[in-house]
Amino acid sequence: MIILGIDPGVATVGFGVISYERGSIVPIRYGVISTPAGQRLASRIHQIYHDMLELIDTFQPDIISIEELFFNTNITTGISVAHGRGAVLLAGEERGIPMVEYTPLQVKQAITGYGRAEKKQMMEMVRRLLNLSAVPRPDDAADALAIAICHARFSNSLLNNGGSDICSTI
Amino acid sequence: MIILGIDPGVATVGFGVISYERGSIVPIRYGVISTPAGQRLASRIHQIYHDMLELIDTFQPDIISIEELFFNTNITTGISVAHGRGAVLLAGEERGIPMVEYTPLQVKQAITGYGRAEKKQMMEMVRRLLNLSAVPRPDDAADALAIAICHARFSNSLLNNGGSDICSTI
Repeated sequence: MIILGIDPGVATVGFGVISYERGSIVPIRYGVISTPAGQRLASRIHQIYHDMLELIDTFQPDIISIEELFFNTNITTGISVAHGRGAVLLAGEERGIPMVEYTPLQVKQAITGYGRAEKKQMMEMVRRLLNLSAVPRPDDAADALAIAICHARFSNSLLNNGGSDICSTI
Repeated sequence: MIILGIDPGVATVGFGVISYERGSIVPIRYGVISTPAGQRLASRIHQIYHDMLELIDTFQPDIISIEELFFNTNITTGISVAHGRGAVLLAGEERGIPMVEYTPLQVKQAITGYGRAEKKQMMEMVRRLLNLSAVPRPDDAADALAIAICHARFSNSLLNNGGSDICSTI
């Protein structure tokens, strides 16, 4: 199974492609879609949409795992990020790829077994789980890999438990 | 000039197409894009995107005027609406149509001359300005017409004032 993990955003969208077969997770490609700060919002989400289509066409994921959006104090940033996340979902839907979403808590639990894990612990666990010599960079790419791994781990327990209601399809 | 006004949303996107020539405003078409409540978010924004492309291709607007998004108490709804608004912007950008945004306050001021106008006053003014025999229905379509008229009025004063910084391009 090929899983495309996405850490949504507008300035930076992290992506991480992994292969997951019989309990073994192998990283295939990771990186970020970056959009210039001075660009209009519509132009930025247009770029995200087309780069997403290209990622999907290149790596043919079986599923897209994407982080659920929570608003913190900065509502203005939150609105922009939700616009960008809309472009990601649209690209997935355009290509007919199933999509699931996980909360940041679920991602942390899946990676470290602990919902309040520090960022540093998370990154180190992602490195270990993927057998990499260094922590993947930039951070948004590592976050996207974590979200992809989260689905691999949950899909495994979903199979074992006959499919409970752990994740939501979007 | 053909102006396509958009009242963004996820369940319902209001649209209003008007023609604006030499101070005269004529309604061309108005209505709503509705998406089923039980549908997945990704599927709903996919429908909004494609319906928007169809609207643009049918009416060939010179500009799209869209309401700026403000979050009220319901953040969850706000996130969904921002996803839907992303799909609207994406469709406009895909077709290369210039887009401008106005705040609810600016729309009220443009229509009634008063930023705190009641909904009912707004609807009645939209009816009068468009020479309609009844208030346009549903409400989201009337709101979209108001947003389109708002741009007509501001673009007029923009021309007269040599272009001040009233509206933002998106």
